[in-house]
Amino acid sequence: MNKTLEFWFEFASSYSYLSVMRIGPLARDAGVEVRWRPFLLGPVFLSLGWNDSPFNIYPPKGRYMWRDLARLAQGYGLPFRMPSRFPRSGLLAARVALLGAGEPWIGDFARGVMRANFADDQDIADPGVIRGLLDGLGLPADALISQAGQADTKLALQRQTAEAGELGIFGAPSFITPDGELFWGNDRLEDALAWAANPPAA
Amino acid sequence: MNKTLEFWFEFASSYSYLSVMRIGPLARDAGVEVRWRPFLLGPVFLSLGWNDSPFNIYPPKGRYMWRDLARLAQGYGLPFRMPSRFPRSGLLAARVALLGAGEPWIGDFARGVMRANFADDQDIADPGVIRGLLDGLGLPADALISQAGQADTKLALQRQTAEAGELGIFGAPSFITPDGELFWGNDRLEDALAWAANPPAA
Repeated sequence: MNKTLEFWFEFASSYSYLSVMRIGPLARDAGVEVRWRPFLLGPVFLSLGWNDSPFNIYPPKGRYMWRDLARLAQGYGLPFRMPSRFPRSGLLAARVALLGAGEPWIGDFARGVMRANFADDQDIADPGVIRGLLDGLGLPADALISQAGQADTKLALQRQTAEAGELGIFGAPSFITPDGELFWGNDRLEDALAWAANPPAA
Repeated sequence: MNKTLEFWFEFASSYSYLSVMRIGPLARDAGVEVRWRPFLLGPVFLSLGWNDSPFNIYPPKGRYMWRDLARLAQGYGLPFRMPSRFPRSGLLAARVALLGAGEPWIGDFARGVMRANFADDQDIADPGVIRGLLDGLGLPADALISQAGQADTKLALQRQTAEAGELGIFGAPSFITPDGELFWGNDRLEDALAWAANPPAA
């Protein structure tokens, strides 16, 4: 069995930020190939009865999350600035990421979007921000943003988000191993990679 | 500053099980003294709008939690059997634990209750189960259970639970360092101990 790990993430998600920034070198060290699976938390949260991020709905959880994120980012050596708006819509970025999911630029693009949102306090819902990131990577920004807005791309992201729900995903980041093991949360990234690299005997 | 860590836990809480079983040796190795702070999640959850465990209210989270718990317990070398009833009331056990919070038997008692609930599928709300545990520790079971039911003990647990809410606690286990840093979840036990042992320079 090929050693792969499905990486389900959302650009609006604070803990997804940490995993997007960390997964590359960790996966390489583990000998595991990452399958980038962008999706939208909004519809998943709606199915649980939440019309906003639970970090906004439950203020003590939200206050804790931002402090926890700052501590973790410092520990990982990652830049972090609390976004002036949360959550920002990751819709456009997710559509572009879906187009690039199998391309060599997906990691750089995902990290760029996450840095914009959680380190530089930029509005990732602004097409100008996404265009700037794609330009910076030497990619055909206008063509990609145009393709991102086409019906088949929109439908593909809807399908991927529905698939997340069907797989039992209820938050981000989430990781799924080839043998179907689900891990939730940046805290489980290392465990998920270890499982993907060496699944325990059943 | 004395190296201590407040350990806020609930006997009904599945992830508290893991931390109750793990904290002793880890704290000793870190040179940190544990302050055992039993409390009740029920009133805290009610203040967030939940009249049951979120693991019951949100089935995908619940299904994941039990799988995650089984994996983690195996990794830690801890026994685990999914309780036939969840959550069980930890009220009596918490009152007894409050009486013993500063006593040398608190760790053994807490581990005994947790094992009963999460490894032996026993009903920790049954006074007979608690009595059996206290007996097994050579403690005056009848006197302690009687004292647990007195008004001042009940009030003390209500106050401790209210204090949890005031401290920003919204789940269990939670850890608070002498300089007021809050850590939530069994995943953060090691980080909390490290912070308590060596607070970063402000």
